[in-house]
Amino acid sequence: MLIHTIKEVREQVKEWKKLGLTVGLVPTMGALHNGHLSLIKKAVEKCDRVVVSVFVNPIQFCPGEDLEKYPRTLEADTKLCDDAGVNIVFAPSPAEMYGENQMRTNDFLTYVIPPFFYVNKLCGKSRVGHFDGVCTVVNKLFNIVQPDFTFFGEKDAQQLIIIQKMVKDLNIPVEIIPCPIVREESGLALSSRNKYLSDEDKIHALALSKILNNIKNCYKKGITDVEALKETAYQFLDEHHDLEYLEFMNQNDLEETTKADDTTRVFIACKVGGVRLIDNILLGEK
Amino acid sequence: MLIHTIKEVREQVKEWKKLGLTVGLVPTMGALHNGHLSLIKKAVEKCDRVVVSVFVNPIQFCPGEDLEKYPRTLEADTKLCDDAGVNIVFAPSPAEMYGENQMRTNDFLTYVIPPFFYVNKLCGKSRVGHFDGVCTVVNKLFNIVQPDFTFFGEKDAQQLIIIQKMVKDLNIPVEIIPCPIVREESGLALSSRNKYLSDEDKIHALALSKILNNIKNCYKKGITDVEALKETAYQFLDEHHDLEYLEFMNQNDLEETTKADDTTRVFIACKVGGVRLIDNILLGEK
Repeated sequence: MLIHTIKEVREQVKEWKKLGLTVGLVPTMGALHNGHLSLIKKAVEKCDRVVVSVFVNPIQFCPGEDLEKYPRTLEADTKLCDDAGVNIVFAPSPAEMYGENQMRTNDFLTYVIPPFFYVNKLCGKSRVGHFDGVCTVVNKLFNIVQPDFTFFGEKDAQQLIIIQKMVKDLNIPVEIIPCPIVREESGLALSSRNKYLSDEDKIHALALSKILNNIKNCYKKGITDVEALKETAYQFLDEHHDLEYLEFMNQNDLEETTKADDTTRVFIACKVGGVRLIDNILLGEK
Repeated sequence: MLIHTIKEVREQVKEWKKLGLTVGLVPTMGALHNGHLSLIKKAVEKCDRVVVSVFVNPIQFCPGEDLEKYPRTLEADTKLCDDAGVNIVFAPSPAEMYGENQMRTNDFLTYVIPPFFYVNKLCGKSRVGHFDGVCTVVNKLFNIVQPDFTFFGEKDAQQLIIIQKMVKDLNIPVEIIPCPIVREESGLALSSRNKYLSDEDKIHALALSKILNNIKNCYKKGITDVEALKETAYQFLDEHHDLEYLEFMNQNDLEETTKADDTTRVFIACKVGGVRLIDNILLGEK
């Protein structure tokens, strides 16, 4: 069922709650691919009722980013959700979420602001204000849907960790279910932005997963010095790659580390053919 | 029933919700007086079950303010609540609310930040960060108790308006019930900080309510020019008064006005005997 208003989704959820049913929420920006589908499947499995939100959230895009050209495929998204057993696709307009004036500043809108320590690194460094927009919209979605469980992909690991921190800090009554990255057979992590890649770009884009896998292999062989592990990346990079960062951090609190261990997550961001791609890997994962 | 942990209050509320009972929350910093009691009575009247939170919230005090000497009277507060028919007095420790480290900065804590336009005036101007702390703790309390109704006094009118804005902006599923200011027979608005006033201070403190009442009388007689209305205040002020502000604003969006009408709220803050007092009046109120 496709719903566009907050009022309608609330009424439906209220009825479910009265019946004692559990509710799952999968927040997305649409352009659904198999990565999203893995979250959706998990939600359908775990919860009595599932809401997938499809909302390209203007306040999490920075000036100069791809807000206007971000892929919007609501018809296909709804079909995919219906087939997967989703009960509600919630696709509000920006006006429904933020009022007639889409306020992009904190002059007239209450914001939820994640801690500086979690934000001032990785993607947050180049995408100033991005995670403020993410936390604010996710907080709103939690308040609208009041889910028992919510599903986030490890693909956006910094986002996942920041949302976990928000839920803990603000005592939000929801359980977060992290879901592993889904990859093409080639190793490329699925992303809605992959649509921007040419066939040739896609080959160059494999460097990200190759770098991460190689680092993990080196770690498994006993190399724990982060500088040494970083050195192993450069063999995969050439003039087609514009590396933004390659960082090693504790996966719980995003504390930077110089000596890798099983709790270390390696984060990479790199532009390929003008498209900004991210990927990550947990060294302790089997 | 006095409860100190989030877990216990959640379990109790969950049981009430299962029974279909409505829940009211009255957030306080304790040192309860008849002003609070009027909120509590309204809550007991309106809701099946009532939680009163008693928490002196460290993150809403600014450096140099009275956090340490703020009156704490939990035993008397609990007695008063019991007598009024309150079901739970929720009195968490700072560690229970913020973890072992009481984080006073946004480096390690997720904050809820009200809009700059609502904050950069009246009490927010001198109490930098105060309303960030208020919104964050109230948001946490809403998530912990999940009340259907919550009760705030018009005494702290800027706070009430900011909380209303937060609830709207973040789609928080709670209805706010504003409650009128309670005054001593003399006209002095009740406040926990009145305890700091000497008998002589209390007489000087009457200037606040006198100024507001006089302005309202002048307005009712047809004077709407704000500058002219402000002029009428000075007859009540002498060397015992340190006026911080006297402002005329729209009571819904805190927009400053030069011509008073029925939606205009007049706000005053003034130090008497070193104690900062606030008061306000709605010109359209009968």
